[in-house]
Order: sequence, then structure tokens, then C-alpha cells
Amino acid sequence: MVPFIGVPFIGISDIQRLLQRVGIGAFIERLAGEIEADYRRWEQFEKSARVASHSTVGVIELMPTSDGQQYAFKYVNGHPQNTAAGLLTVTAFGVLADVQTGYPLLLSELTITTALRTAAMSALAARWLARPGGSTMAIIGNGAQSEFQAIAFHRLLGVRALRLYDTDPAATAKLLRNLRAMPELRDLQLHVATSTADAVMCAHIVTTVTADKRNAVILTPSMVKPGMHLNAVGGDCPGKTELHVDILTRPGTRVVVEFAPQSRIEGEIQQLPANFGVTEFADVVSGQSIGRADADEVTVFDSVGFALEDFSALRLLHQLLQEHGDLRRTIDLVPELTNPKDLFGGVLGTTQRLQRVA
Amino acid sequence: MVPFIGVPFIGISDIQRLLQRVGIGAFIERLAGEIEADYRRWEQFEKSARVASHSTVGVIELMPTSDGQQYAFKYVNGHPQNTAAGLLTVTAFGVLADVQTGYPLLLSELTITTALRTAAMSALAARWLARPGGSTMAIIGNGAQSEFQAIAFHRLLGVRALRLYDTDPAATAKLLRNLRAMPELRDLQLHVATSTADAVMCAHIVTTVTADKRNAVILTPSMVKPGMHLNAVGGDCPGKTELHVDILTRPGTRVVVEFAPQSRIEGEIQQLPANFGVTEFADVVSGQSIGRADADEVTVFDSVGFALEDFSALRLLHQLLQEHGDLRRTIDLVPELTNPKDLFGGVLGTTQRLQRVA
Repeated sequence: MVPFIGVPFIGISDIQRLLQRVGIGAFIERLAGEIEADYRRWEQFEKSARVASHSTVGVIELMPTSDGQQYAFKYVNGHPQNTAAGLLTVTAFGVLADVQTGYPLLLSELTITTALRTAAMSALAARWLARPGGSTMAIIGNGAQSEFQAIAFHRLLGVRALRLYDTDPAATAKLLRNLRAMPELRDLQLHVATSTADAVMCAHIVTTVTADKRNAVILTPSMVKPGMHLNAVGGDCPGKTELHVDILTRPGTRVVVEFAPQSRIEGEIQQLPANFGVTEFADVVSGQSIGRADADEVTVFDSVGFALEDFSALRLLHQLLQEHGDLRRTIDLVPELTNPKDLFGGVLGTTQRLQRVA
Repeated sequence: MVPFIGVPFIGISDIQRLLQRVGIGAFIERLAGEIEADYRRWEQFEKSARVASHSTVGVIELMPTSDGQQYAFKYVNGHPQNTAAGLLTVTAFGVLADVQTGYPLLLSELTITTALRTAAMSALAARWLARPGGSTMAIIGNGAQSEFQAIAFHRLLGVRALRLYDTDPAATAKLLRNLRAMPELRDLQLHVATSTADAVMCAHIVTTVTADKRNAVILTPSMVKPGMHLNAVGGDCPGKTELHVDILTRPGTRVVVEFAPQSRIEGEIQQLPANFGVTEFADVVSGQSIGRADADEVTVFDSVGFALEDFSALRLLHQLLQEHGDLRRTIDLVPELTNPKDLFGGVLGTTQRLQRVA
């Protein structure tokens, strides 16, 4: 037998069981609380732009961060052409580790969790930026992330009407089907729009969550009305944007980002000079900046996803495994040694075993 | 049931079974061949210094690389104080992924594999740099990595005599015990030295593999004789070196590194100005630089470990799992969807399931 330290592992089957136990809406709400708490202690985090490896068809990224006590990283890919081959555009997994020892505390799937944390972050930002009481949201792009956005805004912001648009009607049909199947969304009005312009009409909040890896113009300046909050989720890597640049620069518009050095590379603001004025979300949460000046201001959450949010998610998952111990599963990722200076003897064996090994 | 793509997983128990099947010496030799082949196509690799998160007690690092076809990264920690708590100084794991889709191909333990690949790299470098026919090696530092170095140099360089020294006699006793238990090392003479100076006396090759995280002086200039090859393994992060700086700068000395930008931060050459002349190992392998000018030259392999070597190791492991299919095990790290645009419906369920989930 080989001695090892069992590292808790959350696979696809485990995250499903956890979400069944906790509830998706409740999970997103609790995660939004964790993310907010972590943004409040922004200065404690080691922050860097993610480490990206680009190819002609996509990108593979590592997103590390640490608060000095715990360290987390996420592996995430973005391959828009994957869907044609029956694969997901985005898959992810990640690890939470103990800074004191460097040992992993949790290895988890993050494909589903990323969708949950992105929606949690979007709704959290909107709570600070959107005009209170806005109950209508447009969702432009009805792909893999859209249900999660709908649930998050329904639960955290009281959105009661959705206006849906996608260039692919099948995507919208899928979103409708999934949302209508959820009893807790029974009070949600669903309107299928004929165009982006139709969708955003009379929307208080506009969520753009399209997948094309190019500088697209999903929203044009004329569509954006005073007081709107734009939740721009889909523009999240170099060469991939969704908003016409004039939307960002128009007076009376506030652009809020997660971590400016990363967003200037990956976000909507990659279209603008490096000195374009933006507000970091942490400053809004801490009260150093205001989120919205008045009812007419247009607020833009130029979201690209930051490592801190995955850190919060991995910590929540780690916590949930402690609360639901019966769902805890481990894998033998790290050896355990009687004498830690004897890796060879401890793992590869003593005399008898070595005679077979050598 | 939740659909998922089974990602091959090599845990501690699996790597032991694989090594039993293949043999440790044979594994190291095959890995050295893979590493050499990858260094020959150096220009195909995406290269960057590793991404380190330092704390007062250690470091956690991510080491990504890609050859445009496959992508690999390693997570590795270095915590010298861990041994006092019964934990390993270094643990690691890593992932091999497909650049075309971004999907992981293999998740593997790399604690044991890192020890194997470091030894493989050391012996490989010595094959290019050391004076031919040198059969005596000193090993200074007899901790977790030392057995692997002994096996690698015995197998790949024909080393037949080892002179061992460690400030902790228990470490040397452990190394002796482990080596004496290996039948294939029966022809290896083992000498326990009384000091570093005693150990290096009449050694053709000197391997330093100590663990203290500080600028130590394990070797001084007077110990280094003409024609020696120094395999400096232990100095591998900022503030952690093993060689007196004059050893490196003395005329008639050639310093070979893996990837200069990383080695200038982490290797022995961190003690020297950024313009200090070094040779990259890839240039030696490709013939663009010579490895050793003459029999009297002192060669120093200033090894810190580069991502390419872990890439080679992960590829070899992936290949071995194909050759030994009965040892193949998978984990449910990535969801598999009938409709990849329907993450929500595919993973979190249809109507019936949702009534429980929501």
C-alpha cells in the first residue's frame, strides 16, 4: 500500500450533488456574499493579470491569487469553435492550497462553478451599480452562461422580466426551456426579442454574454439609454469585445472593472488608451469610489473574471464539503511519508518492493 | 447520472504501479530521452519564467509551457520548514492539455515525477557537459532528491562511486540504506564523507542538492578542481543558492542554464549581474554552443528546473498510460454535454432534476 494524503476532490458528479443539496440560487447568493467580502479586503490579495497561452483557435489561462493564508488558481480554456465538435467553449478546474505548507486543500471542477461565480459577480456588481428597482433585464447571447445570469439577477436584484436575444434562435429556445422548467422562476416574465435593439428597449439592465472571439459590436451607442446598467460579460480576452467604443467614452458613463491591469488587456477597455479612466470594483465596495452618481448615469461593468472570484468560489466549495461531509471524496494526489526526507524509500518502497521496482 | 469526460488521473498509487512496471532506472533513461528531444525543438516552445507566489515560509509556483500542440503546467511548492511538521518540502502535480480544444488530457501527481525528471535532467546535462569517463560523483545533500540523482548518474553516465555528505548524518544513513537495497546498484561503491571538502575530493562530478532556503556556500572555489562538472540542483529560487560566486566567474568555467531569464531570477547566477555570460542548454543540444571546451574546463549546470522538463514528463506519463492501459484510471473533471451550448440543462438537469435543484 502506498501512503498518501487524500486531497478533497469535487468532480462533475459531486458539484451536481452539492448544488442539489444547497440549491443553485442559494449557492449563487452565498457565493456573491463571499466574493463581496473578499473584494472588501482587496489589499490583502496578491494580484496579477492571468497567464495566458494563446493559439489560433483559443486560449488556455492560469489565474493564481493568494491572500497570504490561502492560495488558489484556476485553469480555464476558451475555445469558441469547440461547440462545433460537441465540446464546451469554456472548461475549468482549480485548486485551493494552504500557503503555510503549500499543500493542496481542494481540487475542484470549475466549469460549472465558473458559470455560477460569473453570474454571482455580475449580480453583485449590479447591486452596487444599477439603478435600484430596475426589474427588466435584456440578455444578449443565450448560450451556456445565460441561465446562470437569469437566476442570479432574479434572486439578487429582483429582476422580474427578461428580454432575450441571440442570433441563434435555438439558443434562445434552450434558455426559455430551461428557465420555464424552474419552479422558483415562476414569476419571471420571458420575452423573446427580434433583435438586440428590441431586447434592450425599456431594459434597466443589459447583460451581454456572447461568445464570438472577435471585436464585435453587440451594443451601439443609440441603444444605450440614460440610467441603464450594462453588464458586459462576453468581452473577456484580447480581440474579443462586445460594446461600441463610444458607449464607454460618452460623458455620463462610468466604467467599472475588476482589476484594471488585466481589464486593459482583456476587457472592453482594451479598445481604449491605457490612461482611460476606470473605477475598480474594490473601490466601490470599500466606499472609496461611488458606484453610480445619479439616476441618469450609465454604468458599465466591464467584466472579464478575476482570480479573486475563483478564490472565493474554491473557498466556498471547501467550506461546503465541511458542512456536507457525506459528499466528501478524496484522491491520492500527494504522498504521505513517515520520514518526509525519504521520498524514495517512503513511496518507492523498501528492500522487497525495490527488487520489483529496480 | 451526470455525463462527464473521464480525464486520466495518475495518483500516488498509480505512479508507484507504473514505476514497478517500467523500472525506475528505465523510466529515468526514457524520460531523459524525451527531455533531450524536446530541448532539440526549443524554438517551438512558449517559454516564460514561472509564476511564483512567495510567502515568509515558502513558495507556490505555476510552470506553464506549450509547443503549440500540447500545453502543460505544473503546480509546485517549496517549503523547507515542512519536514519539521512531517510534510514534504516539495510537492507537485500537473496537467497535460490539448491546445486545439483546451481540454485536459491527463492530471498527474508530480511529486515523485519531479524527483525523477530532475534527476533525468541532471544526468542528461552531465552527458553533454561532464568529461567522459568520470566515474566518481559527490552528492552534497542527501535528502529527498539524492537517491534519484544516484540512480540517474549510475544508469546514464556510468558513475560507479559515490561520495556522500550531509550536515545531517541521518540523511546520509537513509540514502545509504536505500541505495544498498537496490540490486541494480550492486556495483556502486558508496563512501560516507566527513565534510563537503572530503566528499568532493577526487570526484569528477559534484552534485549539490541541499534544501536550505538561503544564500548558502556549499562549495567554495578551492574545492573545485579543473575538469570537474558541477551539477548544482539545490539553488532554485530567489535567495537560495549553493555555490560561492567566484566559482561561477573564474576563467575556464562554463555556466550552462535551462532558460536564462528564469535562471537569472532563481539560479546560482542570481548572484551575478544580468549580463553575465551563460550558455542555454538547448544551444548545447542543437550544436550552436559547445558543452565543454577541453578536459580542464569546469562546467556548471545551474539547474532550477524548467517547465519544458515537466511537459516532457507529463507526455511520457500520458504515453505510458496508453502502453499500460490496465493502469488507466479517470476522474470526472470535465462535463460532457449532448448540446455544448446547454451547460445548465446538460449538467444541472432537466425538469424533474431541477425541481430538486432549484
